[in-house]
Order: sequence, then C-alpha cells, then structure tokens
Amino acid sequence: MAAEATRRTGPGRRPGKVDTKGQILQAARAEFAAKGFDRTTIRAVATAAAVDPALIHHYYGTKEDLFVAAMELPFDPRVLVPLIIGSGIDGLGERVVRTFLGVWDAPDGRERILGLIRSAVTVDSAAAMARNFLDHVLLGPVAEAIGGDDARLRVTLAGSQLLGLALARYVLELEPLPSATTQEIVERVGPTLQRYLTS
Amino acid sequence: MAAEATRRTGPGRRPGKVDTKGQILQAARAEFAAKGFDRTTIRAVATAAAVDPALIHHYYGTKEDLFVAAMELPFDPRVLVPLIIGSGIDGLGERVVRTFLGVWDAPDGRERILGLIRSAVTVDSAAAMARNFLDHVLLGPVAEAIGGDDARLRVTLAGSQLLGLALARYVLELEPLPSATTQEIVERVGPTLQRYLTS
Repeated sequence: MAAEATRRTGPGRRPGKVDTKGQILQAARAEFAAKGFDRTTIRAVATAAAVDPALIHHYYGTKEDLFVAAMELPFDPRVLVPLIIGSGIDGLGERVVRTFLGVWDAPDGRERILGLIRSAVTVDSAAAMARNFLDHVLLGPVAEAIGGDDARLRVTLAGSQLLGLALARYVLELEPLPSATTQEIVERVGPTLQRYLTS
Repeated sequence: MAAEATRRTGPGRRPGKVDTKGQILQAARAEFAAKGFDRTTIRAVATAAAVDPALIHHYYGTKEDLFVAAMELPFDPRVLVPLIIGSGIDGLGERVVRTFLGVWDAPDGRERILGLIRSAVTVDSAAAMARNFLDHVLLGPVAEAIGGDDARLRVTLAGSQLLGLALARYVLELEPLPSATTQEIVERVGPTLQRYLTS
C-alpha cells in the first residue's frame, strides 16, 4: 500500500492516460446529468475536463460512444440491439427476455445496473441521465427498428415490464421470481413482450 | 407558533395519545425492518415502544393491521383487493391497472409510494419490509383469491409489470408513458395482467 502510494505520487509516475480518461468520464457524467444528452456537447465536456475536444474524440469517438462509456454499462446496447432485432419478429419477445436476464446474470452486470437503478430512483439528475440513455441508445433505436404505429409506446411498455421484472427478481427478491429458472421466466414474460412489440 | 409550542409543552398538555401512537408505529417499523413480518411480535413492538401490548391491539388490532398502519399506505389493500377480485375474472386485468393508476394519481399517493420504492431499492432492510408487505398483504391474498396452478408466480409477474409501469411513468418519466391517458395505458397493459392472472 505504502509503496503503491509512493509510486503513484513520486517522480516515477507516468503522465496519466488513465487519469485523463477518468477526468473525461467524470466530466461527461456531470454534463449529461446536468444538461441531458441533447444539450451536452463534446466541447463542454472537454472544457470541464480541461482537455482538448480532439482527445475525447480520439478516446471515445462520438457523443453516443462517450455516453455509453460514461454510463459504465456491462454491455454495449449498440451491439446487442441489432443482434436481437436483426433475427426477425419470430420469437422476438423471448430473445429479448433471455438477453436481458443474461446481462443481469453476467459477472459485474447486476451490481452495475443496480447502481444505475438505485441512482435513477433517488436522484433527479440520475433519473434524467437514465431517461436520456434509454431514449437515445435503447428505446429509440428499438422503436425505429420494429417500426409501425405507436412503436415508441409499445417499446416503452416492453421496457417497463423488463424494469419491473428486474426489480422484483433481483432487488425486492419476490418469490418465486428469484428461484425461477431463466427458461421459466422466458416462457412467461416472452409472450408479454412479443405482444407489446409486434401487435 | 409560540402559543402552540407553549400549549404543547406547558402544564395544560394532554397525556399524548398521538405521541404514543407515533412511538408504536416507529417501533413497529424498526421491528418489521429488522426481523421481517413473521418474526415480529406485538409483544416485542410493545417493549420497544414502552407500552402495554394491549394498547397496541386497542389502537391497531392485529399484527397485519399494525403492519399496514406502519407502512403509511395511501390505500388499504385489504379493502381494495377483495373489491377488484370480487367482481370476477372478466376484465380483471383492466380493473387492476385502473385501480393501480388511481392510487398513484390520488392526493399524496404518489409521494408516499415513491418514498417506499426509493427506500426499498436503496436500503436492504426497507427491501425486506416491502417484500414482507407484498407477500402478506398483496401478492399472497391475491394469489389465494385467483387460485390455480402457479398462482403465486403469475401474480408476482403481474406485480412486476405494475412496478415497472410505475417506475417508467412516474419516476423515469419515459415518454410517451407520462403523457398517455389512464385509458390508453389500461388498454395496453390490461391484457398483459389478464394473461398473467388468468391463463
């Protein structure tokens, strides 16, 4: 511990790629929380983090990329969503539930999402950030992909079922949900999502 | 203000019915949170509140009654549940959604339930208390009333949809849920609950 502390603060310390990235993410979280996704600019994040905007683009790419990185998700929705939707309408509801449970059951997955949900229901700025994230990276793209009348309402209802399922199974631990198998839950909740998403 | 304070602390002060009730509820919340519903006794609450157990029975009736009072709900589930279930299977899902939204939209309703949910997702003891409450006063009785195979799983899934709906509409405010009318939501979510509860 002492050696580590000395190394980090001593003359041998490398100029911090890691620290700079951390500063950028911290500034990004503050900006997104305060202004929302739309009104946040890479330039403002750069100013807050005291770095050049080009460095943010270099590390994180677009504003969407920066947003995903700042949320510290255990998955990348921009990879996951096309995968699930791309296989077509048949069995879509079941695939969505199975993938959703898979993310929760992945190492680190549960703690990270729980942290986000806990913040979102207790802190207004975190709720705004979660809303932004869901709008831009999850609900919006899915609604566009499935199309049709009221796509946004139908996708948001599907999302509400998944959110409630996660809270009941992982947070409130309302039996028999925690002890049910993935397959049992997929069979029960799949048809709900199928109906919301496709009818 | 000053007169009020003087009256309350002065010699004219009545020995406190209200204070005693407050002490009982506070002790009850602490006991239920620490031990759960099953292992909490009226006797232990009485000891913690420094009152006679008979006084708790006098003010609050049974342990279930005390529990409902301690949760400070804006509705009494023991009145509401028979009302909804009693009208039969036809349109059950829609009635449940309509009643649920009604509670959230009632004066004080939203703030009180939000307070409970916020505690439940952030504090383990509050999650245990919410779980107890839902088990004993809401999910259990409803499962018994609708009966059939897997009644408990089906009722808990219905509950998860309502929980997620409330979070999405009232906490995260994911459009278009907040601006949708009660009727629109009843039409979409009613069939989900109907399927969970009756098939």
